[in-house]
Order: sequence, then C-alpha cells, then structure tokens
Amino acid sequence: MLSVRKKGAASRAIGLISDFGLSDPYVGQMHAVLSRLAPGSRVVDISHGVQPFNITQGAFFLASSAPHFTRDAVLLAVVDPGVGSNRRIIVLRRDEQLFVAPDNGLLGLVAEYGDVCAYDLSSAENAVAEVSHTFHGRDVFSPVAAWLACGGGPENMGPQIPVSDLVRPAWSHADVGRGCARVHVLHVDHFGNCVLNLRVGELGPLEGLRLRTPLGRELRAVNTYSELPQGTPGLLEGSQGFFEVAVNRGSAARDFGLAIGDELELEWTP
Amino acid sequence: MLSVRKKGAASRAIGLISDFGLSDPYVGQMHAVLSRLAPGSRVVDISHGVQPFNITQGAFFLASSAPHFTRDAVLLAVVDPGVGSNRRIIVLRRDEQLFVAPDNGLLGLVAEYGDVCAYDLSSAENAVAEVSHTFHGRDVFSPVAAWLACGGGPENMGPQIPVSDLVRPAWSHADVGRGCARVHVLHVDHFGNCVLNLRVGELGPLEGLRLRTPLGRELRAVNTYSELPQGTPGLLEGSQGFFEVAVNRGSAARDFGLAIGDELELEWTP
Amino acid sequence: MLSVRKKGAASRAIGLISDFGLSDPYVGQMHAVLSRLAPGSRVVDISHGVQPFNITQGAFFLASSAPHFTRDAVLLAVVDPGVGSNRRIIVLRRDEQLFVAPDNGLLGLVAEYGDVCAYDLSSAENAVAEVSHTFHGRDVFSPVAAWLACGGGPENMGPQIPVSDLVRPAWSHADVGRGCARVHVLHVDHFGNCVLNLRVGELGPLEGLRLRTPLGRELRAVNTYSELPQGTPGLLEGSQGFFEVAVNRGSAARDFGLAIGDELELEWTP
Repeated sequence: MLSVRKKGAASRAIGLISDFGLSDPYVGQMHAVLSRLAPGSRVVDISHGVQPFNITQGAFFLASSAPHFTRDAVLLAVVDPGVGSNRRIIVLRRDEQLFVAPDNGLLGLVAEYGDVCAYDLSSAENAVAEVSHTFHGRDVFSPVAAWLACGGGPENMGPQIPVSDLVRPAWSHADVGRGCARVHVLHVDHFGNCVLNLRVGELGPLEGLRLRTPLGRELRAVNTYSELPQGTPGLLEGSQGFFEVAVNRGSAARDFGLAIGDELELEWTP
Repeated sequence: MLSVRKKGAASRAIGLISDFGLSDPYVGQMHAVLSRLAPGSRVVDISHGVQPFNITQGAFFLASSAPHFTRDAVLLAVVDPGVGSNRRIIVLRRDEQLFVAPDNGLLGLVAEYGDVCAYDLSSAENAVAEVSHTFHGRDVFSPVAAWLACGGGPENMGPQIPVSDLVRPAWSHADVGRGCARVHVLHVDHFGNCVLNLRVGELGPLEGLRLRTPLGRELRAVNTYSELPQGTPGLLEGSQGFFEVAVNRGSAARDFGLAIGDELELEWTP
Repeated sequence: MLSVRKKGAASRAIGLISDFGLSDPYVGQMHAVLSRLAPGSRVVDISHGVQPFNITQGAFFLASSAPHFTRDAVLLAVVDPGVGSNRRIIVLRRDEQLFVAPDNGLLGLVAEYGDVCAYDLSSAENAVAEVSHTFHGRDVFSPVAAWLACGGGPENMGPQIPVSDLVRPAWSHADVGRGCARVHVLHVDHFGNCVLNLRVGELGPLEGLRLRTPLGRELRAVNTYSELPQGTPGLLEGSQGFFEVAVNRGSAARDFGLAIGDELELEWTP
C-alpha cells in the first residue's frame, strides 16, 4: 500500500488532464481519491475534454499548461487506450515538476526541453489496495500522484530509465528547414484556432513574414487576432507557447479543413 | 436560520451531483453558497452531467462514487423534477457518510447496502433565510449539506423515518435467477459502455461464462476492454462496482440500441 | 511586477466567468495562475459556458451570481472579443465586492445597483511579467484578480473613473411602462427557460396577472414550474433575481423561438 503521506506537510499542487469528459463521474472519483490521499493539495483541472484516446491533444495540453503551475507541481495526464495492457506507467521529472502518465506518447512534448529524467513506475499497480481492470486513472495514477504530491520521490517507487526509451511520436517536434517547415496540428481550440507543433521562437522574427500553405492560401504573420481583418487567416505566436493558425472571429479549422494530427507544409519568404 | 457552524472545526468533504450542466451558473452558485457556509470543506464535483430529470443515472453516480470519498463525507445529489411540490427532503446516513437528496428514488441504490438510517428534513426549507421557488439545490439543499459538513447532525433537524418509506424504483436492484437475470441500464458512459444494475459479485465466477441477450448477441465475460477483439461486445466487472456491457474501442449503446432505463434479459451457461 | 501578496493573510474568494469552455486548457491555466499567486483563495467556477463573445449572457451570470458569494469576494469575468485592442480593463467596487472585467458591457447589469465606484486598471497590462497578445484572461486579468484577492486595493493600481463612463448596453435595464414593458432576453438556460432583464420586484404583485406576448401567446404568472400544466408557458420570478419565461418540463426558447439578446414586448392586465 502507498502510504508515505506526511501529515501536515505542505503538499504540492496537482494538475489533471484526461479524456474522461465531465458527464461521467470518473473525474469526480479521481478528485475524491486525491482529496482523500492528498488532503493538503490544491487540485486544478486543466481539461478533461481531450478527445477520446487523442494522445496528441493530451500531450499538447500538458506541455502548454505546465509552465503556469507552481515550480514543484505534480501534473497527471490520463489518456490511456492501453489500460489493462502492459504499457508502462512513467513519472518524468523536469526541473522540479513531476509528470505522471502512461508511456504512450503523452510525455512526448514535455520531454523535449529542460532538465529531464524518467522513472518506470509500472509496479505501482501492485502497491495500491484495490485496482479495477479498466480505471487506472482513479485506482493507480491518482494514488501515485497523491503520493508524489505529499512528498514521495519517484526514485523510491521504480527504476530510472533513459528518457530516449519513452514513446516519442512524430509530432513531438516540427521539421523546420530553410524557408519551409513540415508541421502537425496539435489542437483545434474552442474558437477553431489550430495550434501547430511549432514552438514560439522557432521561426525567427515575424516582421514582414508571409506564409503559404499547400492549399495556396496565404497566412499573414500577426501578433493579435484583431490585427487581422474579419475573416482573414493568419499565423500568430499563440498564448500556448506554440504558433497558431487563426481566423479573426472565425474558425481556421473549418476554413482550412484541419483536424488534430493533420500534417501541413508551410513555406515562407521573409 | 441554519447556523450551528463551528468555527475552526475540521469540516467534512462534500461531493456534488446534479443535472444542472455546467453552461448555466447554477452549479457555481451552489459552490458559492457552500464555500460561504462551509469554508473549511473541500467540495468535489462528481458530475453535473446527469441527463435532465434522469433520477436513475443520478442514483447510479451517487452509489458508484460514494466509496471513493472519505469515510465521513457528505454527498449531495440534486435531480429534482418535483421542486416546488411537496416531495420530501431526505438525509440518509450510511455508516458514517451522509447523503442529502430529494425523496424521488435518487437514494434507491445507496439505501440497498450497509448500515442505513433516514431522516425527513423537509422542514429545513423553513429554516434557511431566502428560498426561491425553483432552485432548492442552492437555497435549501446546499445550506443543509454545509450544515452537515460543519458537524451538524441530521437527528437535530428532522424526524427519523423508516428506510422502507423512501421512494425505491424498480431499478434499485437486479432480478437474478438461475441462469438468467432481468436487469436495467443505469448509465451509458462517455465511451458508450452500458452500466447495468447488476453488482459486481452477483453472478459468481465469470470463468468461461457466455451470456446471451434477447437480441441473440453473445457477450464474452472478460476482465478488461483490451481482452476483446476490436468491435466485439463483452460483459465485464466495471470500475463502478456494477457490470458493464462494453465494446472495445466502440459504443455498446449504439451497437445494442440501449439507453438509460432500458430493461434487458441475460441468460447464461457457465 | 504585481507582488503585494501578503503571506499568510486571509484571502478573498474568487469567482470566475468566461466564454472559454472546458474542452480547452484555458480555464485550467487561469486556475493554475490563481493558485500560484493567491494560494489561500478558494476559486469557484461560476460558468465557462458563456456563448463565445456573448457579453449579454456573461453580464447576466455575473449579476445573478455575485449575491451568493461572500461579502468581500472578487468576481472575475472574461468575455473579451476586444483582447489586444485598446479596450479598458475595469475594477468595479460594489459595496465590498470587487468585479474585474474588460470595459465592454460585462459590468452593465452589476453597475445598476448598490454603492458603486470604478477604476481604470488598463495599465496593469504593463505591470505583469509576461503577457501574451491573445490570452489576457490568464496573463493580465488573473494576476489582477489574485492581487485583489490577496488584499490589494484597486485605488493603488489605477485612476478612479465615473461609473457613467463605463460601456452600458441597451439591455442593462428593462423599459417598464403602464401595463407594458420592452425587455430583452439575457439568457436561455439548460432547460430552455428564458431569463428577461426584468428584475424581481419591477412588476408589482403577480396575483391574477396575465401577460401577452406580441405572438399572441398568454403567459400565466406563477411561483413555480410545477404550478403550470405540462407544456403550458408562464412567467415566474426566477431563482436568478430576474423574471423568466418558462414551460414546465419543456423549452420556452424553442416554443417561443427566443434567443439571447432578443427583444420582447409584454402587455398585462392585473
């Protein structure tokens, strides 16, 4: 049984991501477990609206949200189509933050930067009291996250493994050349903006930059949505740390026919 | 006025279920009231995605989530088509947990097991300051739950009544015979899995069990979704304490045409 | 940098409203910032289901929810189509509560009543560390709200301005005459009930009142949904402090073809 909880000790904040949605009681039950096992931790829902089994989107939510949490936060991401199979359970430490997730690519974007090391905590499944076959988010991942939030160290729970061993999908980084880039769509937001796996800073200065897509459409590089005439598409350094294709007061996803995971080529002349 | 609040005393956690959805400010206003009247209590949203007026689904969320909360939690469920009528307000004590709900069947599954007693708190409506005619969830149920979370006892708020007096719908328990069972669908989850009112343990060992539905479809009894070939239907001990009809990476609800409340017959040969 | 935070001081509760929805990580990132900068404050989500850019609905959620919070709560509303333009950032003090919002009408209903004064905090944008061009909700509004929750005073952050200077849309109040009123729909709830900008109390006693709409439909003035025969429309003092057009167990919005922002004339004979 996991039970190293130090009573009264200050607890780390916990951030949660899943594809469980909010209409089922699944997220609530994870909160119930976390509040029982880590009563001193604030638990913040990042989003539970990841599309079912969409690891790309989950990885993006994790990478874009972590910098806004406290330096020592625990971030738990559960998008887990392989639950019940022998996929590994990983704890990644990046600087002081800890990330808990199944080893299926969810940590792909987070593992690209910073001072990173990884631990295989698959055996935690045997350390918790009652484990359902189908809901490890509640029965395995939440107790592990609570244990870490209460001061537990991943090095005491499983062997360190090379970060290069982790599942690392193609969309983990953009393929940027001279005047062109092959990129993936990581996310389509509520407003229809399409987030690319092109990190802010990877393109150099945007002044006067004009981009072309394979569809022959031109994208103006801008700083804000409101610089674009209504209905005009543009590329901007989004608030999430990645570039976004956006249409002011419109939907870039609909206009360009883009969905999460789609590959896109960009060309530019500065 | 309800005001027995003991300042500084440790407060019980509060779990919330409703059919209010999250697009209206109703749930937020319940939270506002709870944080005002029980500032020391952690409030956990179990789900507010109960289908409007769907008491069956609300009862299932309550029964399946309560075991994951602390031993002394207060669970508040508001699915209340009879608001403004003379339906009773009930507090049920099961072991040390307290359940607050209108007497319309919401407590049907919870009342089936454990050491249970019930109190009629309908008069609480007269004890709170301002009561709207239409939103007792905020104006009556939340103050009652806050009062209990702060240490108030239901026996001080209204008369004890026989548990057998509570509204107890047909789906409160399954009708299990030799080689057959008449069951109801309690819930269809986000993934299309159909939860039955057949509790884990009620069928005996599942090894080699094959079940038939009236539609002539066969269900394999399995432990995990991934044991099923993609697209194949099965019956498994779900994570919610009840059996589920599931299709690996598919929707059992769509494949079988099932909805909440539907009755189903199962036959089996061990 | 905003950093007047008093460690250990009791923090004000914070209520949140936005049009960000819950499928993106935007709301979670606001929570992450608030929990980092105001770790002692309870943060309550009022709703993030405001329709994109729907200022009317956001203003209604704010006005109807504020009375249920503690007397000194901070209410933050972000529905901000003008992000990146030169729209002002306002802190409104009403009695002891503080409201933070862009100056685009969101404060229209709140500013109508009580002891109100306003401050222009547009320069806060320059006081916070890193500001994206597109997500002031996280990068500007949340730090301001956290700073206020930790005891900061708006008078130390920007100049006081006349309340009459704030953007105040037509729907900020109803136009009530003798036996008739011109009203707007502020909100259509989850159940299809249509909330009007007609405050409870503005019509006098409802006994025997019968109202006609321009469509020739009659509305019975009632106290509860259940007083109406199933399918019959009525007008009732809703739980939100405003009158609602409702159909018992049906949708008034669908029956009357009403949407948020629609104007409606009511006539009555007492």
